[in-house]
Amino acid sequence: MNCINNVVIIRYGEIALKGKYVRNRHEKTLILNIKSMLNTCGIKYEDIFRDWGRIYIKTADPRAIEAVVKVFGIVSASPAVTCEPTLESAASVSAEIGRDLIKEHESFAIRPRRSGKHSFSSQEIGVACGNVVFEHIKDKNPRVDLTSPDKEIFIEIRQNHGFVFTDIVYGMGGLPLGTQGRMVALVSGGIDSPVAAWLMMKRGCEIIPVYINNQPYSDETSRYKAMECIKVLQSWAPERPFTVYEIQDGESLSAFLSNCDSRYTCLLCRRMMYRIAHSIMNKENACGVITGSSLGQVASQTAPNMMAETSGIHLPIYHPLIGFDKTEIVDIARNIGTYEPSVLPGTDCTAVPEKPSTSAKISQIYHEEEKIDIQELLKHALSGVKMVNLL
Amino acid sequence: MNCINNVVIIRYGEIALKGKYVRNRHEKTLILNIKSMLNTCGIKYEDIFRDWGRIYIKTADPRAIEAVVKVFGIVSASPAVTCEPTLESAASVSAEIGRDLIKEHESFAIRPRRSGKHSFSSQEIGVACGNVVFEHIKDKNPRVDLTSPDKEIFIEIRQNHGFVFTDIVYGMGGLPLGTQGRMVALVSGGIDSPVAAWLMMKRGCEIIPVYINNQPYSDETSRYKAMECIKVLQSWAPERPFTVYEIQDGESLSAFLSNCDSRYTCLLCRRMMYRIAHSIMNKENACGVITGSSLGQVASQTAPNMMAETSGIHLPIYHPLIGFDKTEIVDIARNIGTYEPSVLPGTDCTAVPEKPSTSAKISQIYHEEEKIDIQELLKHALSGVKMVNLL
Repeated sequence: MNCINNVVIIRYGEIALKGKYVRNRHEKTLILNIKSMLNTCGIKYEDIFRDWGRIYIKTADPRAIEAVVKVFGIVSASPAVTCEPTLESAASVSAEIGRDLIKEHESFAIRPRRSGKHSFSSQEIGVACGNVVFEHIKDKNPRVDLTSPDKEIFIEIRQNHGFVFTDIVYGMGGLPLGTQGRMVALVSGGIDSPVAAWLMMKRGCEIIPVYINNQPYSDETSRYKAMECIKVLQSWAPERPFTVYEIQDGESLSAFLSNCDSRYTCLLCRRMMYRIAHSIMNKENACGVITGSSLGQVASQTAPNMMAETSGIHLPIYHPLIGFDKTEIVDIARNIGTYEPSVLPGTDCTAVPEKPSTSAKISQIYHEEEKIDIQELLKHALSGVKMVNLL
Repeated sequence: MNCINNVVIIRYGEIALKGKYVRNRHEKTLILNIKSMLNTCGIKYEDIFRDWGRIYIKTADPRAIEAVVKVFGIVSASPAVTCEPTLESAASVSAEIGRDLIKEHESFAIRPRRSGKHSFSSQEIGVACGNVVFEHIKDKNPRVDLTSPDKEIFIEIRQNHGFVFTDIVYGMGGLPLGTQGRMVALVSGGIDSPVAAWLMMKRGCEIIPVYINNQPYSDETSRYKAMECIKVLQSWAPERPFTVYEIQDGESLSAFLSNCDSRYTCLLCRRMMYRIAHSIMNKENACGVITGSSLGQVASQTAPNMMAETSGIHLPIYHPLIGFDKTEIVDIARNIGTYEPSVLPGTDCTAVPEKPSTSAKISQIYHEEEKIDIQELLKHALSGVKMVNLL
């Protein structure tokens, strides 16, 4: 009998809470995204189909599970063996699986589940299959323990299919990428901004990464780190190639350094970044700008400064990390693969003043900006836009 | 020999990464907040003092640990027994503690740590104390296991003090409340908005809770739930009594329902909420407005709608939950105590249309608002402001 996993069961969470129309649309997008991920990873499959509350991929490729749990919207997945939707078939497959799974003297439990119309209850699946497994591996002296077993065998009997599996691999949750509009994501190559962009992708947003190049105040290493982080983010959005913008904005920094109070350099620089991002957002018909700001993490990220950063600029701005601790951000960065590129050796921006203002007044910022021609600097920066090819 | 825990060791994380000046200020605020929490919980203490990277509370009250881990900025805390900063004293206290802690046939490990100048190394603390503990409980047939012991005894010998402890209780992390400015927090009594406010408190922000009362389109249960949630939030900010605003805004809703396209009711209502919040923010000299919005959670929380919500209103707005899944929000709500009040039975807002727009155009919103006198409605709402006494 063939007990090779031949299907991947996919479970999703928040999508199932939606109304019929939205749910149907989200499920379709999710299937599209699963196909893209499998294609990109070179994983062959026979079919992908939906059944109430589940998606199934017909594939025997063991790499499929690792690939699909990277697809946003998936809560968990299990490689499984299919069987007929009968007690006999489920029991016989479970027995085969049990023989490999359960070692000498180990305890086990059957975790049964049922949907559709059947002549047996969930409990009856558990008893019938448990008995058959027990008899089949009696020589190993097994024990049944439903509370804290060494091994578990999950059996799902649905209307037209049955499944037996032993593993539940957790996914990232969220919503299917592409269901929640598009946003510009400012990516600097530090630890935070890629995590912020990723969190919005997890919630279904497509992103348009923007890297603001401050050369000669930053160097090629910063640019390299940012692009490597963007490549990692791209791996979470297979077959949806990013449009990546790179903007040279060193001239603005030069203007601030020559003309303005140096305590406000970072703030003036951020305001220029937001103006650039806003302009790209409008051009791309996107819905917002994502930043990696979190409150109080660095000297310039105070509440008064953050208020001054956007005053008079008026853009829909999102700071997904605003309530996060640094350790929480680092944990996510490690988990999603952006940590390594973002901590590569690099030079910090050389324009950062020794004593940045921590409680900038908006009137003061306006006063500083009057000393320079902001619109001209913005026009200049935007005229030098480069589209980056990540390959 | 007296082996009752007589001190609580407090560890903090992100504060220790700050420069000298900010660190000193944050540590002082943290100590102030610890004192407030202990006072509010009726916990007596002899002294609170700082030593490099640690805060110590001299108290034998076993409730102290549970109270202090609710103070923002604390990463972990341990109830401990003090000893002299010598091997002999540490060993003798460890032996007493070990006798109670380690059961028959269990394995144990000493986890030594040292700071200051001493004639012994960390490793020597481990060996010396391990031997003494072993001899002292030999009758229990203990084993030493440094990899995965059943029980651990932590010994910290610093310059002038020694400590022995067995538990590390984790705190909430974050930054000390009061170090990051003040923000207006819109609190509705649902699950999300109290969590959003709490996350910003965790990052050090004081909040000014605002409840917008939409009666007759909501009822007394909504108000009750909101106030109960605010009380829970207040318990995280002891001795910093909230200023709670309640605004009657039912008339605005009536105006929207009578004059505007009903698909935009929720959006128009949110815009009015933001105008009210912005006005209170200015009055209170606060730095921003906190909302419980998360992308794609409900039909009206789409990216285009969120863009339309604030267009032309121009306020520093923070959505700490923007990148969260519903399950993640619920987990935090349960953890911080706002879940229970927020799921009490209640009536949903009766003004919510059956088919809210999911992709509102800004021009359409402006068009709808032209049909009514927004400024007059705002003035009316603000004139009926009530300050709520939570007691």
